[in-house]
Amino acid sequence: MTESTQITLAATPTGPVGPDNFAEQRTELGALSDGQFLVAVRYLSIDPTIRGWMQHDTYLPKIAEGEVIRSLGAGEVIESENEKYPVGTRVTGMTGWQTRTIMDGGFRIPDGVSYEQALSVFGMTGLTAFVGIEDIGRVTADDVVVVSGAAGAVGSIAGQLAKAKGCRVIGIAGSDEKCNWVTETLGFDECINYRTDDVARALRNACPKGVDVYFDNVGGEILNIVLGQIRDRARIILCGAIAGYDGELPPGPANIVNAISRRATLQGFIVLDHYDRALAAAETLGALLTDGQLVSEVYVRDGLADAPAALADLFTGANTGKTLVRL
Amino acid sequence: MTESTQITLAATPTGPVGPDNFAEQRTELGALSDGQFLVAVRYLSIDPTIRGWMQHDTYLPKIAEGEVIRSLGAGEVIESENEKYPVGTRVTGMTGWQTRTIMDGGFRIPDGVSYEQALSVFGMTGLTAFVGIEDIGRVTADDVVVVSGAAGAVGSIAGQLAKAKGCRVIGIAGSDEKCNWVTETLGFDECINYRTDDVARALRNACPKGVDVYFDNVGGEILNIVLGQIRDRARIILCGAIAGYDGELPPGPANIVNAISRRATLQGFIVLDHYDRALAAAETLGALLTDGQLVSEVYVRDGLADAPAALADLFTGANTGKTLVRL
Repeated sequence: MTESTQITLAATPTGPVGPDNFAEQRTELGALSDGQFLVAVRYLSIDPTIRGWMQHDTYLPKIAEGEVIRSLGAGEVIESENEKYPVGTRVTGMTGWQTRTIMDGGFRIPDGVSYEQALSVFGMTGLTAFVGIEDIGRVTADDVVVVSGAAGAVGSIAGQLAKAKGCRVIGIAGSDEKCNWVTETLGFDECINYRTDDVARALRNACPKGVDVYFDNVGGEILNIVLGQIRDRARIILCGAIAGYDGELPPGPANIVNAISRRATLQGFIVLDHYDRALAAAETLGALLTDGQLVSEVYVRDGLADAPAALADLFTGANTGKTLVRL
Repeated sequence: MTESTQITLAATPTGPVGPDNFAEQRTELGALSDGQFLVAVRYLSIDPTIRGWMQHDTYLPKIAEGEVIRSLGAGEVIESENEKYPVGTRVTGMTGWQTRTIMDGGFRIPDGVSYEQALSVFGMTGLTAFVGIEDIGRVTADDVVVVSGAAGAVGSIAGQLAKAKGCRVIGIAGSDEKCNWVTETLGFDECINYRTDDVARALRNACPKGVDVYFDNVGGEILNIVLGQIRDRARIILCGAIAGYDGELPPGPANIVNAISRRATLQGFIVLDHYDRALAAAETLGALLTDGQLVSEVYVRDGLADAPAALADLFTGANTGKTLVRL
């Protein structure tokens, strides 16, 4: 018998998550059935969407109290009754927050790709940025692109993809330190600190002719401000709304009326629908990495017990780049 | 010399329009230059967008104080220095609120089409409804379609177009009388009175599985309520936002966060960009009229001096169908 240490949902949150929302338990996993394999989880992907799953039915059912926290993760097959996933295979999938899990499928991690890369630039994070820029935003070199959450996992890659196309790219982030990293290390043209700058004025200065594409990771008032400064045929990529995940919904964007006169499109998407683009994303992102045109930053914390704090950090802005927990 | 009686913008409005915003004057029109023709205006098209033009730069420049109120209209060529528009030609175009105007182009009204039809079902109104349903909403028979401003010019045609496709169609309008007309005469499946009904509850009852397409003519809180009840891959046609034209912007839709998990698209459009669809619209709408599947209602007021009141009526909900002023 195999034991798994798990973090479960102890209490459904209605505001910022804290220790009381989580419980740790040890569970005996059953024997493997035909087609199953046992994975020793090595890394967890800590994503804002987990906070949504903890409270609401969204594109996936709500996590019930007592259930293991749903999460992407990566690990190694250590026992197998599935010949396609022999012992030693490295996989990513919905491992949940636990040390061992029984799976019957998953994405094989190619040789030469680390666990950290498999959960960031070559995982859902990179695919989300790629699909948003390419398919939802249909970004071309002439576009002025604004990215919120610019120092975050998806935003940092999305902005670099737009820069690689030749766009003028303006980031929005939550500290001067992050803004410096976004411009100096990632190569964005400018970055606005939404905590200290007058965002509307700073945005007008940064792109006086207005915004063609907005890659929105935050929603709330920043979405409203950007909608007030869009150009004709602007595309708003509704990728995340972290401003609303951690409690009450923020006020909606009154400037949505501009979408009519500016013939703008606001489009939401969920990366789960776009697995068919995974190869194209990996090729594009891999080439940029090889050319030194892409920085893929990970922020790693150690130990399963740190996962709740790592999640909470996403909402206070402590992270830069992709947040992972190493087990 | 020809005199034109004109209604001009006396004072830029910031709230509901009233008599003080308008002035009447008589102006001598100059002689015709080569290529020009003189039109005796017979009908004015009274549209909510005029209210926007009176206050803000939008997709067209703001009307300056002292200028004739910009407006679609229709009339007859009574003098011509343009062989393509001989005397007797009937045309539609941006006549403005005046009795005579000099033009150098316009849309010829085909034989058999009345002025009233040329400014409603076969004009911008019908084209707006058609483009919204066909090109922006990409409506198909399986869609559950909600139309606000359902008793208005565009909404009444948009809903009938969706019904003709076989959709379930729910209207939203501002009185029981209008709702009865929308269901009994236009053939919508249901109609919600937003002034007396609990719109969220009534909508949930009318379409328990949610909304596939929302043809939005009003914006404001109704947009928010519908966004709270969208199905996967919903399309929101941002056509008008009458709730925000006549003063302060209403609060934005907090439920826009649903557009992410529901993979929804909100798209604004301006009919001026879609003249290439005019023939297709006329063919479709003409066939429906001939088959008795389309009711095209006009609400006609008499006399140029009534144009300001006709415009104000759009915002109090006095009109049903397309509002026209006959000169």
